[in-house]
Amino acid sequence: MDPDALAKAFVDHYYTTFDANRTALANLYQEGSMLTFEGQKIQGAADIVAKLTSLPFQQCQHSIATVDCQPSGPAGGMLVFVSGNLQLAGEQHQLKFSQMFHLMPTPQGSFYVLNDIFRLNYA
Amino acid sequence: MDPDALAKAFVDHYYTTFDANRTALANLYQEGSMLTFEGQKIQGAADIVAKLTSLPFQQCQHSIATVDCQPSGPAGGMLVFVSGNLQLAGEQHQLKFSQMFHLMPTPQGSFYVLNDIFRLNYA
Repeated sequence: MDPDALAKAFVDHYYTTFDANRTALANLYQEGSMLTFEGQKIQGAADIVAKLTSLPFQQCQHSIATVDCQPSGPAGGMLVFVSGNLQLAGEQHQLKFSQMFHLMPTPQGSFYVLNDIFRLNYA
Repeated sequence: MDPDALAKAFVDHYYTTFDANRTALANLYQEGSMLTFEGQKIQGAADIVAKLTSLPFQQCQHSIATVDCQPSGPAGGMLVFVSGNLQLAGEQHQLKFSQMFHLMPTPQGSFYVLNDIFRLNYA
């Protein structure tokens, strides 16, 4: 699978899961995973999912504008850079966001999220 | 130097250099460096600087809104995620942008840019 297609598939899976059932994102993180969410640093799958499920909205819908990817070095990792819009239930306007993921290969031939940085882009 | 201070110092240096003399950015890239600029993929310090110096504006001023950083793994790299505004000479409105850098250590105790992804955030 070529890297761009892999990045796109990951991004589709990530945000579909986020919008449907955030707790299922736990499968994508490990103990060493890091999330920086609007400047707040969180480490480990459990704490990351606790943060994501505690966000002050229940329903949301991500739409993706751009996906860029690059290999991150000899360890086989991949950097994925996303821009898009976030629609919260009951809100009139969408929020713009940017997010980057550093995906690392697992022994099973899949990937997990080692690094995750999220920022809203305020207008 | 703590990672956040290092990231901030790198970002200040990068954009100050970009705004003053883009050709001097060549020192921050190596042959294996990658830039994805608005979706266009470029590799190697020479081609990256050729791209940056060929952008259709002469004078610009970056202002930084946020800088986030995380260690990228056992190789000692650092991920730096930036959001900010770009003012082009003669333009009334600033452009919002997001950019990520993957910095890798050099044998001399400095860092170079292995990965660089840039996107304008259109309103």
